Amino acid sequence: MTATQPREALAAARDLAPTLARRAAAHDEAGVFPQADFDDLRAAGLLGLMVPTRLGGAGASFTEYTEVAVELATGSGATALIFNMHASVTGALAHVPDDVARSLGASDGYFAARDRILADAAAGALYAVAMSERGAGSRLSRLATRYERRDDGFRIVGSKAFVSGAGHADAYLVAAKAPEPGADGGPIVSYFLVPAGAGVTVEPTWDALGMRATGSHDLHLDVTVPTDALLGGVEGLALPLAQVMPHWLVASYAAVYVGVARSALEAASRHLRDRGLTQLPAARARIGRADAEVAAARLAVAEAARRVDADPAALDTRRWVWRAKLLAGDTAARVTASMVEAAGTSVTRRGHALERLFRDARCGALQPPPSDVCADWLGVAGLGGDPERDTAVPRW
Amino acid sequence: MTATQPREALAAARDLAPTLARRAAAHDEAGVFPQADFDDLRAAGLLGLMVPTRLGGAGASFTEYTEVAVELATGSGATALIFNMHASVTGALAHVPDDVARSLGASDGYFAARDRILADAAAGALYAVAMSERGAGSRLSRLATRYERRDDGFRIVGSKAFVSGAGHADAYLVAAKAPEPGADGGPIVSYFLVPAGAGVTVEPTWDALGMRATGSHDLHLDVTVPTDALLGGVEGLALPLAQVMPHWLVASYAAVYVGVARSALEAASRHLRDRGLTQLPAARARIGRADAEVAAARLAVAEAARRVDADPAALDTRRWVWRAKLLAGDTAARVTASMVEAAGTSVTRRGHALERLFRDARCGALQPPPSDVCADWLGVAGLGGDPERDTAVPRW
Amino acid sequence: MTATQPREALAAARDLAPTLARRAAAHDEAGVFPQADFDDLRAAGLLGLMVPTRLGGAGASFTEYTEVAVELATGSGATALIFNMHASVTGALAHVPDDVARSLGASDGYFAARDRILADAAAGALYAVAMSERGAGSRLSRLATRYERRDDGFRIVGSKAFVSGAGHADAYLVAAKAPEPGADGGPIVSYFLVPAGAGVTVEPTWDALGMRATGSHDLHLDVTVPTDALLGGVEGLALPLAQVMPHWLVASYAAVYVGVARSALEAASRHLRDRGLTQLPAARARIGRADAEVAAARLAVAEAARRVDADPAALDTRRWVWRAKLLAGDTAARVTASMVEAAGTSVTRRGHALERLFRDARCGALQPPPSDVCADWLGVAGLGGDPERDTAVPRW
Amino acid sequence: MTATQPREALAAARDLAPTLARRAAAHDEAGVFPQADFDDLRAAGLLGLMVPTRLGGAGASFTEYTEVAVELATGSGATALIFNMHASVTGALAHVPDDVARSLGASDGYFAARDRILADAAAGALYAVAMSERGAGSRLSRLATRYERRDDGFRIVGSKAFVSGAGHADAYLVAAKAPEPGADGGPIVSYFLVPAGAGVTVEPTWDALGMRATGSHDLHLDVTVPTDALLGGVEGLALPLAQVMPHWLVASYAAVYVGVARSALEAASRHLRDRGLTQLPAARARIGRADAEVAAARLAVAEAARRVDADPAALDTRRWVWRAKLLAGDTAARVTASMVEAAGTSVTRRGHALERLFRDARCGALQPPPSDVCADWLGVAGLGGDPERDTAVPRW
Repeated sequence: MTATQPREALAAARDLAPTLARRAAAHDEAGVFPQADFDDLRAAGLLGLMVPTRLGGAGASFTEYTEVAVELATGSGATALIFNMHASVTGALAHVPDDVARSLGASDGYFAARDRILADAAAGALYAVAMSERGAGSRLSRLATRYERRDDGFRIVGSKAFVSGAGHADAYLVAAKAPEPGADGGPIVSYFLVPAGAGVTVEPTWDALGMRATGSHDLHLDVTVPTDALLGGVEGLALPLAQVMPHWLVASYAAVYVGVARSALEAASRHLRDRGLTQLPAARARIGRADAEVAAARLAVAEAARRVDADPAALDTRRWVWRAKLLAGDTAARVTASMVEAAGTSVTRRGHALERLFRDARCGALQPPPSDVCADWLGVAGLGGDPERDTAVPRW
Repeated sequence: MTATQPREALAAARDLAPTLARRAAAHDEAGVFPQADFDDLRAAGLLGLMVPTRLGGAGASFTEYTEVAVELATGSGATALIFNMHASVTGALAHVPDDVARSLGASDGYFAARDRILADAAAGALYAVAMSERGAGSRLSRLATRYERRDDGFRIVGSKAFVSGAGHADAYLVAAKAPEPGADGGPIVSYFLVPAGAGVTVEPTWDALGMRATGSHDLHLDVTVPTDALLGGVEGLALPLAQVMPHWLVASYAAVYVGVARSALEAASRHLRDRGLTQLPAARARIGRADAEVAAARLAVAEAARRVDADPAALDTRRWVWRAKLLAGDTAARVTASMVEAAGTSVTRRGHALERLFRDARCGALQPPPSDVCADWLGVAGLGGDPERDTAVPRW
Repeated sequence: MTATQPREALAAARDLAPTLARRAAAHDEAGVFPQADFDDLRAAGLLGLMVPTRLGGAGASFTEYTEVAVELATGSGATALIFNMHASVTGALAHVPDDVARSLGASDGYFAARDRILADAAAGALYAVAMSERGAGSRLSRLATRYERRDDGFRIVGSKAFVSGAGHADAYLVAAKAPEPGADGGPIVSYFLVPAGAGVTVEPTWDALGMRATGSHDLHLDVTVPTDALLGGVEGLALPLAQVMPHWLVASYAAVYVGVARSALEAASRHLRDRGLTQLPAARARIGRADAEVAAARLAVAEAARRVDADPAALDTRRWVWRAKLLAGDTAARVTASMVEAAGTSVTRRGHALERLFRDARCGALQPPPSDVCADWLGVAGLGGDPERDTAVPRW
Repeated sequence: MTATQPREALAAARDLAPTLARRAAAHDEAGVFPQADFDDLRAAGLLGLMVPTRLGGAGASFTEYTEVAVELATGSGATALIFNMHASVTGALAHVPDDVARSLGASDGYFAARDRILADAAAGALYAVAMSERGAGSRLSRLATRYERRDDGFRIVGSKAFVSGAGHADAYLVAAKAPEPGADGGPIVSYFLVPAGAGVTVEPTWDALGMRATGSHDLHLDVTVPTDALLGGVEGLALPLAQVMPHWLVASYAAVYVGVARSALEAASRHLRDRGLTQLPAARARIGRADAEVAAARLAVAEAARRVDADPAALDTRRWVWRAKLLAGDTAARVTASMVEAAGTSVTRRGHALERLFRDARCGALQPPPSDVCADWLGVAGLGGDPERDTAVPRW
């Protein structure tokens, strides 16, 4: 029943997609967490997708993650986005090689803590990400959330925005800033895995155009966590990690928007067939061009993932990650808009899949880094520059 | 207080726009008829916009109508769309010259009935249009609603869809088919002005992506109307009227979508200014290109209107009407999508004007005739053909 | 025979267009000045289009100029571009009101000199513009061409680029910089009308993708001109003039590219009709969408011209000028590319009108200010800023 | 020296690309066959790319062909297009499995003839394709070229158009129709390899917008060929072959246009760097978006090729082939147009790489099947139909 290999996980995701799709309208309408979807994902073992097999998971690569994400998103974009956050936490932990962790300063206690977190995920724990803040976006260097060391651990105070799955996760990956800058004058940003519970409050701010069921509410933190909640057992890991694993912060949701676009293509095709409208030349041309565009975006996501698995920190990998993010976000927006036009007024009724997909898709290009920023970074790199250095805004 | 000239009406519409804008989010959220907006429109005399001055109205031309519609839509697209339907009924009645009406067979009673309808509008009566049907779209020749002559008038039985303002109008312009074909074998389609009341039931089917406050519900008719409810006093006027006044059926809402696009441009500009983001090159480029595109669409609507006023039935006028419809619908969709991207995630929150405008705008290209159909007709005409004759689907 | 009114000039241009079109392929192929076209334009009195009637011209407004330009460009884009430069010189001279000229410091001698230049044009003299320089583009403040006052007039030394009609004009409007800055520290840039002849050499550098027959070669100047060659009789007029007459420097060629786009639409339509391919849905859709887009660009040019005639220096006028430039250039490029695709491989043969129009059209968005710059300026203005102040690059 | 493996061939193509690029302007200007390029290709053994190793070639797969084609086209699109025709002839012969050939009716003599043709290519023979005809396009069923059986072989009479490399090939693959229809009433279309020489005349008709150095002139045939010039040794092979090897007829040049687009991206980037213009935000955004689009088109070509190698006749393979053709052609046109705009007027000078690439790129979407046709076929397939059956026009 439980997927213990990536191939089984992919099959499980494909099997679950129609069920997710059936529930998607209701979750979207109410803007509620898709509990039934996550019950199914948990039962199928998908929460352990990124967890190494030695800890009870499926040990998936980033490529295998993207394939699962496309399938889940073909069913429900919102469910896939929440799942993406969980996969980011578990995938980043699972994929940082031990020697890299050590070279970044990970303490001895880190490995035990990491394994416990991952084993819990394989057993069904759900993690969320509490990174973005109002005013700072997803740029780590601008965070206002602070922590300070206490005898019994760390006290963390601050507020986070866009926390997908807020109120339904077992723990949150929280980025916070130390009270004093580091030796180099730069901010020290650390990651903590903060358990749900006292001191962690959800403010239901999420009521959005699309991806409504992600419940990406605000999270207010005034909490003291034990010492081993500090990820890596060492402070200041957030920025170096962002450098070696940019894909989890930047583009893991590219796969989600490919799934959304594919779903729109399928919904429009189904609608036209059901109405006997397959002979309309304009509708046919729209389907044909969307088909090619979705296929290309999917290839770009797969290629980015392949390179992430091979060499995550290479500049060329980052360029592929930005390409995948740009193409997936823009394709989803364009394709869903065109599919609504191919299918006509009747699909704008609330409850119709295309009505929801059109709204969900508009969010892709906006998620960080937005399409315009990806285009700028790709432009800098294409002109022989270094996006880290040559763009006005700090990237993290 | 009450606008008795087009210029006053335009000023009134401009003054009301911010008030409409403030209410738009709530009407959209609930999907309810914008009663307060129509109270204001009525008080300002705008329901008499198209009514000749001799009957107490402002005696506006089609051009003057489009200017008012752009202003109202800059406030609220949904309110402007409902108003558009009222303006279509009153404008078509007011603008058919007496001799044309006579040549189409209008009876002596017609003129008195027409004047009464128009005078009622000037006094505050609101009319809606019940034309489209599920399966027939807006093509008159395919209607399923039937009427038959009775001693005491006409019995009308059938169901209509997309009746903007359903349940809030004082009377409905209903197109229905005679039981027998005409002498030429074609259908006889007649117009009736059916008063709200017994036999006219609203089925609340409208729960849509955009233009939610139009309440464009289904209307079920099983009603007997007096003889003088037959518009023109003669049967079979619907098709000839569609030929001489295509703008009211086709493109009067082009102006509405220009207003929606303009409103999105202003909302994005305001948002970027408020956040101090006017230096972002990508946002600036988006604003600049949207500015040019909205300006061009507005000119196209004005030019179409100018020609409608000069020579409504000319082929060249019809081509301008299709151009205006195509450009306004496509521009609104493109511009609102780009403005959301210029402004970023925070404008996707429900309640933010851009969130609503993005959804409202997607409807423009879909309203009959859809952009793809306009492009086809323009293509036929541009290739020297006659869209009436050379396209697969009958136009009305 | 000779047009003495704008209406006659427009009719003459319309009559000449097919003749220009017949010659266009040969002029394009050889990249030679369209001598026969200008013989015809001269004979029809079109060189006097902008000259006041009291001096023997047709006394056209800017609007009337754009209408003539669209017609000429429908025949030949290159001929219309050369004509545009002549019209810019004569139009700017004719349209600066006497009191404005005086307030800018024009000497008494100015009015006589101006009238002589204009009367010569009405009698058939052709003027060209020698403004741009390699490295400076069309920005007056960066010019390297220098002049210095001599006893017998002014010595002008420098090199100009992109001089349409070079070698075929009777005189050139040359912008040059004084040896010393002005009282405010800024450069003093003056205009001279330099007669063709000794000291004015053409270097045939123009061999370009499109608009080949403009012969926009380099011009080398080492020449002494009499005192009255200084336009206005006073130094430093160039920058203030650019402020009050931006349309002649910026957007007079927008009309040309509307003509090019219209010509491509007509050529594709003719090609499809000739081949009996009017039933292809994809070709029809391309024709239909191009038709709407060309119509909209034409309206934008007309609106910009209307505002130029009413209030040339208003910020709102400048915004319309930028919109017209942006829309005309982009529309021409998009429409010609689409028309080639609608018509198919056979129109890519050299000598076919569409082959030339596709190349000519690509130049529109590149002519100063380029589309990307127009978009930026419109964006700044749309965000409440002042493009003069808030953009990195000086505008002139 | 001579490439005997695909990897060596790819390295050789990459090494030759800059040399091809240096010569491209001159070949384009004169519209002459790139003799020096083909001398180099021959010397590097690239004419044997598709020839099995047992016959002295490199034994490349379709995937390996596309990689070589992208590299060659990055140097010169025209050279890559001529090479593509040679690769199509040799590749199709090399890749038809013996058992398929037998099942299609290949005679015993076929295998010896085929091996001789391929061994000749490995030794340096160049083949061209003479398939298209005026009026028939590339649809085999509409050919006017006829053959009839003679005692000493076959007499072939007819005229072909768009024969890339005409006059420079050692032999031409000619499709011709038998005098009588087949048993099923359909046309019998056979392939012949016709040696250059008496009876094969080139009419220099090719003088085109782009891809000028392909010299795709007309070919007039009135020639008698020996019996073994009939490919397969059996009549009527053309249509079945088109079914099993659609990629060689349809989309082998997709790779060429990816190379053209990539070359434009590189040329624009070089130009902006050389001018110190890497800070212009609009240029950077154009480079960035083009980078993503070119990368995606390249992936689509690679994926199509991968599927061709795995299962050439599958419907899914054909869909990928159409996607690759559509995306490569459209991307090349869009990207080159945008790169010209990013780089500005100076790159429109004849002789500048971007000037040529802009013209070359416009041809991609027009080559059969054009983008609009690919979109239609993909639309039919995406709607569950069969493009063979459900489109108006026969595909071959």
